[in-house]
Amino acid sequence: MISKNQIKLISSLQKKKFRDQHLLFVAEGYKLIFDLLESELENKYIIHTKHADKSDFLKSDKNIEFIECEASDLKKISNLKTPSDVVAVFKIPNSNYEETEINSSLSILLDDVQDPGNLGTIIRIADWFGINHIFCSKNTVDLYNPKVIQATMGALARVKVIYTDLPKLVSKFVSPQFPVYGTFLEGETLYKSDLSTQGFIIMGNEGKGISPELKPLVNKKLFIPNFPTDQATSESLNVSVACSIVCSEFRRHQFQK
Amino acid sequence: MISKNQIKLISSLQKKKFRDQHLLFVAEGYKLIFDLLESELENKYIIHTKHADKSDFLKSDKNIEFIECEASDLKKISNLKTPSDVVAVFKIPNSNYEETEINSSLSILLDDVQDPGNLGTIIRIADWFGINHIFCSKNTVDLYNPKVIQATMGALARVKVIYTDLPKLVSKFVSPQFPVYGTFLEGETLYKSDLSTQGFIIMGNEGKGISPELKPLVNKKLFIPNFPTDQATSESLNVSVACSIVCSEFRRHQFQK
Repeated sequence: MISKNQIKLISSLQKKKFRDQHLLFVAEGYKLIFDLLESELENKYIIHTKHADKSDFLKSDKNIEFIECEASDLKKISNLKTPSDVVAVFKIPNSNYEETEINSSLSILLDDVQDPGNLGTIIRIADWFGINHIFCSKNTVDLYNPKVIQATMGALARVKVIYTDLPKLVSKFVSPQFPVYGTFLEGETLYKSDLSTQGFIIMGNEGKGISPELKPLVNKKLFIPNFPTDQATSESLNVSVACSIVCSEFRRHQFQK
Repeated sequence: MISKNQIKLISSLQKKKFRDQHLLFVAEGYKLIFDLLESELENKYIIHTKHADKSDFLKSDKNIEFIECEASDLKKISNLKTPSDVVAVFKIPNSNYEETEINSSLSILLDDVQDPGNLGTIIRIADWFGINHIFCSKNTVDLYNPKVIQATMGALARVKVIYTDLPKLVSKFVSPQFPVYGTFLEGETLYKSDLSTQGFIIMGNEGKGISPELKPLVNKKLFIPNFPTDQATSESLNVSVACSIVCSEFRRHQFQK
């Protein structure tokens, strides 16, 4: 059975301070936990009520510690309005990357994206379009925020998310063969742009866009054209929507080849 | 000054039941209210604190009734965590459409979309891509839900949202010249599809997709290809993300012509 200390520890993981201290995060629900068990992430334990169906978890080749608890305890540790029967605790991994892998592929850079739902959705978009790395500025919403984890719907099992100093990262990789893309109202029409199979795609903050430090480092400015181009429209698209349109267009180019 | 009855009425508009009864809805914040004042929507009144800046509203050619209130009262009627200085009440319009307009353009159909953020985001996407009509099934989240209204960010000023029986609507319009599109895992690759300049684009419920009643009415099944196609990926894209990729691709076709 679960101990009071474990309940206290897991509840504390709702706050970034304690996630950073213990290097642990929480994932809830059968599908999400199952997907994360399939990844390289290290599972600490799975808390479950006596009604839980553990069969899928038992298929994992990982050595899982199961801890039973009362439904009332599960409610205490859950971040969901309607808790499932299962809550898993995973270790926060070290974030590292292979330079050669970055040099030969597309990565997404998130410059202070604030909304947990947007980060979760963008991880799903990256997963769908085979983009294996997302680099986040230090001020981007925390990946291990329970709302982000739930919004990724398991895509996190396949996409690496790394927090780092973005201007430094861009300066390190940018080259004539490795373009840095960003969306701007004064950019080139996305549909008519030359899109590479490697490079960085920068998505800016929901309100402020790409920061003044990163802007001068973008060497391929793109614009998603509104339609018809001469008609009044919304001032901007949501950041995850813009990200999805841009990623789809990059992959369409490769698809045609 | 605002009366207690007015505070009670406006607070009640958070619930659909009272919005339906009074045929009124609430919009908050300078930018959103200004955009809606520019539209055909009829404004009932604008509630504001004494610190509010009414200058932009006064430029409107509408005859606006301003009602001053204390900040504490504004907090009571606001749906936002951090209320602005201004809250407007608008009349819910009759929803009607011109058949000839529908016949000659693209419209989006939402089949039981449940999340207020998704509906708001899809209205912004429609606005961006010049899609003037969104038809919603009766079980789609209510447009006048404060979360939807705030998420539209003013796009509602240019996009008509109409609740109706979708199978009936589709049966009325479908023809060899008027295709009905939907996204399915077994659909044709979006990037290689023949996309029309008129027709319906159906987006399904977040969990269940397109309903069994509508599915047989879709005569052009589309699929947004994941990349690379042979790699494991997320099971699906978020509905507003899928909607944005599809709409962008429709408009790219017209852009090239």
